[in-house]
Amino acid sequence: MPEQKIIVQKYGGTSVATPERIMAVADRIGRYVNDGYSVVVVVSAMGKTTDTLVSLAGEISSKPSKREMDMLLSTGEQVTIALLAMALHEKDIDAISYTGSQVKIITDGNFSNARIQSISTDRIKESLFGNKVVIVAGFQGIDTEDNITTLGRGGSDTSAVALAAVLGTRDCEIYTDVQGVFTADPRVVTHPKKLEEISYEEMLELSRLGASVLHSRSVEFAKKYNIRLHVRSSFSLEQGTIVMPVEEMMEKFVISGVTTKADESKITIRDIPDRPGIASRLFNLLGDNKIYVNMIVQSTGIDNKASISFTVLKNDYDRAMELCESIKDEFGASGITSKKEIAIVSAVGVGMLSSYGVAGRMFDVLSEHGINIEMISTSETGISCVIDLDYMELAAKIIHKAFLEEEQQA
Amino acid sequence: MPEQKIIVQKYGGTSVATPERIMAVADRIGRYVNDGYSVVVVVSAMGKTTDTLVSLAGEISSKPSKREMDMLLSTGEQVTIALLAMALHEKDIDAISYTGSQVKIITDGNFSNARIQSISTDRIKESLFGNKVVIVAGFQGIDTEDNITTLGRGGSDTSAVALAAVLGTRDCEIYTDVQGVFTADPRVVTHPKKLEEISYEEMLELSRLGASVLHSRSVEFAKKYNIRLHVRSSFSLEQGTIVMPVEEMMEKFVISGVTTKADESKITIRDIPDRPGIASRLFNLLGDNKIYVNMIVQSTGIDNKASISFTVLKNDYDRAMELCESIKDEFGASGITSKKEIAIVSAVGVGMLSSYGVAGRMFDVLSEHGINIEMISTSETGISCVIDLDYMELAAKIIHKAFLEEEQQA
Repeated sequence: MPEQKIIVQKYGGTSVATPERIMAVADRIGRYVNDGYSVVVVVSAMGKTTDTLVSLAGEISSKPSKREMDMLLSTGEQVTIALLAMALHEKDIDAISYTGSQVKIITDGNFSNARIQSISTDRIKESLFGNKVVIVAGFQGIDTEDNITTLGRGGSDTSAVALAAVLGTRDCEIYTDVQGVFTADPRVVTHPKKLEEISYEEMLELSRLGASVLHSRSVEFAKKYNIRLHVRSSFSLEQGTIVMPVEEMMEKFVISGVTTKADESKITIRDIPDRPGIASRLFNLLGDNKIYVNMIVQSTGIDNKASISFTVLKNDYDRAMELCESIKDEFGASGITSKKEIAIVSAVGVGMLSSYGVAGRMFDVLSEHGINIEMISTSETGISCVIDLDYMELAAKIIHKAFLEEEQQA
Repeated sequence: MPEQKIIVQKYGGTSVATPERIMAVADRIGRYVNDGYSVVVVVSAMGKTTDTLVSLAGEISSKPSKREMDMLLSTGEQVTIALLAMALHEKDIDAISYTGSQVKIITDGNFSNARIQSISTDRIKESLFGNKVVIVAGFQGIDTEDNITTLGRGGSDTSAVALAAVLGTRDCEIYTDVQGVFTADPRVVTHPKKLEEISYEEMLELSRLGASVLHSRSVEFAKKYNIRLHVRSSFSLEQGTIVMPVEEMMEKFVISGVTTKADESKITIRDIPDRPGIASRLFNLLGDNKIYVNMIVQSTGIDNKASISFTVLKNDYDRAMELCESIKDEFGASGITSKKEIAIVSAVGVGMLSSYGVAGRMFDVLSEHGINIEMISTSETGISCVIDLDYMELAAKIIHKAFLEEEQQA
């Protein structure tokens, strides 16, 4: 008997939104079974089920207990696993469903945002050995005291990657409602390209900068355990995008994507006497008030006076301004300037590290079109510029053209 | 510290049908907490949730796996326990919810109709000791291999009684949408009386003969473990009916209720030579074909020839007739007569055992009104008569009047 080829597949909410969609998923799984794969399937709750449950809870309590929310929300995935098992049976494919509790997906006790600590493979392997498709409820686990926990946003992706890791396979497919990872948001850039491959690092940077196709925690997990994530559509048979180690990539572009964000605001505290502890005091204060800071730039000017600029979510803008005003004098700053409406446009790519001049070329492109750069921040895998909100789409288009469309023509 | 007074309360689907109803249930529980009770609550799925899930499964499979149906249906109760815990928290009452799995309600592996084998009280007692209201999902358990099972019709009542038994309390309240157990169906008899007390045996007989307020399995369970079941409405504060051992009853009526059934048919196989094995052959044949037989009457006539009359559900009538035709000659019977439309009217009461003449009085009453009795069957706690369907309501009214309304006037 040949060794089992195990594949883990994860189907998101839109892929299992209706009984018809669940039947279509069963067909797809059947193809893999016929090809000799041992299939482990992770599913999310159907369509908008989770939202419905959240608003049901909202009718009872404005601040429900997190333990009870996890008890409530975990039912969504449990419904899907049972229905998918029935759909597979209907197609004469042997299958069995398991809750997170039943395959002992043990997490910490951090309700609503738990981290997976271990998974028992005994029951899964026994079922796979019995030629059953194994269906596991995503997003959920139990803590060491047998309370039901959920993994937070993108949790089912994380469940799938963790299962691939413990089952010792590198093959993990993430089925969603888009064809893969694109070089830009199609709502912003007219003809973005689908990437065949992307590195973990680029994918993380894209997630951080606004691409929503994969949650960053699942990508970090995949990187840690060296799992190849195939992001693809459950509505077609086309290949999607494989997220993989950079050293395994066949082709590497200088940049792999352009992202935009329109939900942040910029604040600058001007002319602070440059002494230790100022930045730490400022950002701890914001953090203690649960204000998430994205870009931070500090520049030292004349007379050893520094200005600190940073961006916060637009929703947090008013509160952040209040806090800055409250410590302005303590800092000895000359004043605060701010801009509520800004855009952040970013280029992401591991190729940038080895290609000098990417940043320069990006700035050139923006300046050629008369777009003023108000703030710049760079990381290992990306360059972000704060610009006027009115120019956001134009900036994304011309950067995309310069780096991703010209190459195609070359 | 005084000993804890534990009470188990079960709330059915209509009692928790909406968030508002769940808040009302929380208020009621709060009253018991204030009175010093340690409260264990068992809940059903909200309103029509179970029906909705069943039809969802029906869209995928006409004959879904029972294991997967149990996986699916058990989510209904899980939603309710979480919401009720939130509702109690909202009223500043400490509470915690548990699935059947979490309190180790161990059942046999008979999916969709499992029997409870044991319940672990450790976690429940620990929570009660910590002054928490404990909310347990009804209707569900797990088998010894950790598969989720459900208990079948009336399962949540059974969960509640079983919990009362293992927690060593006799107090179990069953909240429903009616005020208690009545002497007759108010759709048939105009002013039935609510019984303050009823014995287990009478309640079982009423359930068997068509009263749907409690499922017989939970009553059997209560009888076995000597639990007093208080059946009452969650929509009012009035006392309901207590189901209890006959020897504890304060007042005993000759009969406690009149029931009617209109969903059965009568079949008679005539003039069978009286030899051993005929009845066994007939009823095994019907049983093997999953035809449920209710009343059976055998009479021996002249020449040692016997006639066997029995009733079956109207839905099974055609199939039952076919089977009878197929063995008629083998039996040497002279023929088959049948009547598809009949009514069964029954009087139920433990008092009948000690009151000679109840049967006679019942027959008198029927005959005074010109109602012909086509078949009679008696048990320890009841007398049932098959009559013409047209006379069903009249028969119920006059029997109710003779036994239950005259007493009131006396």
